[in-house]
Amino acid sequence: MAFKKLQQEDILFFQSLQDVQVLTDAEQLERCASDETEDLRYMPELVLQPSAVAAVSHIMKYCNEQQIPVTPRGAGTGLSGGALPVMGGVVLDMKRFNKIVNLDLRNLQVTVEPGMITQELQEKVKESGLFYPPDPASKGSCFIGGNVSENSGGPRAVKYGVVKDYVLNIEMVLPDGNVIWTGANVLKNATGYNLTQLVVGSEGTLGVITKIVLRLIPAVKHDMLMLVPFRKAAEACEAVNAIFMAGFTPSAMEFMERDAVEWVMRYVQTTAINLPDDIEAHLLIEVDGNEWDQLYKEMEAIGEIAQRYDTDEILFADTSEQKQMLWTLRRKVGEAVKSNSIYKEEDTVVPRAELPELLRTVKELGRKYGFHSVCYGHAGDGNLHINIVKADMSDADWNEKLPLGIRELFARVVSLGGTISGEHGIGLVQKSYMDIAFNEVQLRLMKQIKNVFDPKGILNPGKIFAS
Amino acid sequence: MAFKKLQQEDILFFQSLQDVQVLTDAEQLERCASDETEDLRYMPELVLQPSAVAAVSHIMKYCNEQQIPVTPRGAGTGLSGGALPVMGGVVLDMKRFNKIVNLDLRNLQVTVEPGMITQELQEKVKESGLFYPPDPASKGSCFIGGNVSENSGGPRAVKYGVVKDYVLNIEMVLPDGNVIWTGANVLKNATGYNLTQLVVGSEGTLGVITKIVLRLIPAVKHDMLMLVPFRKAAEACEAVNAIFMAGFTPSAMEFMERDAVEWVMRYVQTTAINLPDDIEAHLLIEVDGNEWDQLYKEMEAIGEIAQRYDTDEILFADTSEQKQMLWTLRRKVGEAVKSNSIYKEEDTVVPRAELPELLRTVKELGRKYGFHSVCYGHAGDGNLHINIVKADMSDADWNEKLPLGIRELFARVVSLGGTISGEHGIGLVQKSYMDIAFNEVQLRLMKQIKNVFDPKGILNPGKIFAS
Repeated sequence: MAFKKLQQEDILFFQSLQDVQVLTDAEQLERCASDETEDLRYMPELVLQPSAVAAVSHIMKYCNEQQIPVTPRGAGTGLSGGALPVMGGVVLDMKRFNKIVNLDLRNLQVTVEPGMITQELQEKVKESGLFYPPDPASKGSCFIGGNVSENSGGPRAVKYGVVKDYVLNIEMVLPDGNVIWTGANVLKNATGYNLTQLVVGSEGTLGVITKIVLRLIPAVKHDMLMLVPFRKAAEACEAVNAIFMAGFTPSAMEFMERDAVEWVMRYVQTTAINLPDDIEAHLLIEVDGNEWDQLYKEMEAIGEIAQRYDTDEILFADTSEQKQMLWTLRRKVGEAVKSNSIYKEEDTVVPRAELPELLRTVKELGRKYGFHSVCYGHAGDGNLHINIVKADMSDADWNEKLPLGIRELFARVVSLGGTISGEHGIGLVQKSYMDIAFNEVQLRLMKQIKNVFDPKGILNPGKIFAS
Repeated sequence: MAFKKLQQEDILFFQSLQDVQVLTDAEQLERCASDETEDLRYMPELVLQPSAVAAVSHIMKYCNEQQIPVTPRGAGTGLSGGALPVMGGVVLDMKRFNKIVNLDLRNLQVTVEPGMITQELQEKVKESGLFYPPDPASKGSCFIGGNVSENSGGPRAVKYGVVKDYVLNIEMVLPDGNVIWTGANVLKNATGYNLTQLVVGSEGTLGVITKIVLRLIPAVKHDMLMLVPFRKAAEACEAVNAIFMAGFTPSAMEFMERDAVEWVMRYVQTTAINLPDDIEAHLLIEVDGNEWDQLYKEMEAIGEIAQRYDTDEILFADTSEQKQMLWTLRRKVGEAVKSNSIYKEEDTVVPRAELPELLRTVKELGRKYGFHSVCYGHAGDGNLHINIVKADMSDADWNEKLPLGIRELFARVVSLGGTISGEHGIGLVQKSYMDIAFNEVQLRLMKQIKNVFDPKGILNPGKIFAS
């Protein structure tokens, strides 16, 4: 695909538009050249910050006519390179779309712009006694639009579902400048194809999201949190399944290997928890609900199941500070690993009961291909983040041998009934592995759907599909 | 689109296939000429009953090459004419795909063939302590494949969601004979476009479903049911919203106008409930959960909210027989209306709080266009079934004036943030109204998606889109 390099005339056109800030300075270009994915860097030619739907429409129509690549960008917290302008061109920075358009308390719905920080949205609806559950680790900085684009999850997905389970309707600008809604603001819909669910998780490749209608649920009154140390990591994975098989649905069920906990304690400089030498992994388990007594019983029963395995003393978080501290341990793992070494993060997901087998496979392949991994993630969903750290691996092994190891890992994941991304998306860094998850027929359907929305291929080019 | 009329050679080809029953007798053709939609009748040229995926693939490949229309059929309980062979050709009767392929108790998933009766599936998984919630009124006879094709709901959708919320993965045969899975057997997935959710609710127009992977949840121990008689129908609708606003999520919240209850009592010949002359509507409210005391408190609190309106005495179902009877009243409304008069059934859905306005609109338009309506449905979801009965309307008014009334109704529904089908689908009978729900750009996207899957347009032609 031949894209046009930006000319002065293009910049003049963008400057002539209402509600668009045109940024050409090096600092802004640099800011939009990377996201949270490894250490990747791709410079855009221009950054545009629109603040109105009509402006987005004008930009898209022009770029489509001129064959200028456009890469939409949220907060830049993505982990698959989805917001990187790999073909240059325009970065469409959506940060000025940062308002709640309508909080509909009668219908328990909120209409929000894509550039609002997820945690701010959660706090805002909580003021009205409502709850928007999906909470990616980066919730304090990520945008809701990015969450919708990646179909994000987070710890609470295990009980409350992922982003797709809350999106009712999306307003978006198509590459040709047309503005559409994908559905209606209703809880049930059997009217035509489900464009809404097609757009959720499409990683900014089908249209530019300008409004999102989310369903909300009544806020939950109480939660309880405990940290269970296991002497064997495999047993921690087995305990996860035992807890679900016993009929419990915790509101979080997070797995962390020893390294993850150790590194994050160093990174945030805490000695808050005791970490004996013989502990291989932890489960962080939360239950929530409206009846305190009920929760207490649940917590006890779950603790008893965990203690059938080889565990150390369970830590119950008694205060909100303790809860905060335990959640920090979990939420900061990604950053801690990043600060520690060059790394690659995989986002495998399998049917929950296959988690022990997945962990075993990761370690076996680590020995075979010579890589060290730090594993953690949303065990209750079967979603394991595998951070492969470069440490003292040679550049040659890192660049040539490791990809073979990842291919073998992904093939094993798929043979377990799983797939290669649970919540981070394919973006740039996983696209060369798509042939493991899908065959040619499936990929052809997806590419043709892309072509329906974006026949000139100008929107977020170079993502999802290997060229 | 020019379709080929079936020739003797085509029939010989089908007869040569393994695992296919070829039916040409008048009785079978007649059986597949209609479904539960009004009194419509379209004769197929041939009925094929495959029992293996490979057989479906051979049939599709051949029909695609020969330009023979294929209409997949489940149990024929649809209410939008989706299974009617309006272009003739082959009806692909999936009744022999009636097995559970795998009940995965470790992962709380079931892989099922599309021709299994929904209630049988529910009962089967319940034996293992599991729960598949979506329960259309026709659950005793409809097939799970049809439910997936229409994205069915049912009374429990208000708490547990609709079919789309349970489908993890689908095996389907494309019109060209290729067999694909749409996703993976995982609870979270951010790998490529969500083909699974695109296929759910696509009404058999994108592929022939041959296996479905559903997630299951632990069975719920208890439920309680009550019937609340309201002297004003509008107040019943308002009470629905008040109950949700108070933070309750009943497992069913069904609305029935007086006529619906009266007709169904006559139809099933019961005098089980007392129906004073001044009662305009009822709410049937169910709560479920694992703690009896908790449920009892909830039921009481909901009852108190209802009694703020002008209600008669609430009937609490004390025995399972009473529950059964109350549910029969609700589930048989459709059949009762059908037995009473020629009718049209609309399946409007609005944001829940707009329900009183929707009901008011229906009655106002009834007066304007001279039709009588019997309304009932899933009030908790804002999903109102509007049965328009012909009664003593003239044929001319029925055929010419009524469609104008329906158009005006749908336009009002859309302006309330709603849409024209909540769970029955568009199929044949609503397709001429699609322009009210969607503009040309949206419709073009949908038609192009259809074209990606079915470029020759042989699969379930004449549905969803007005030609």
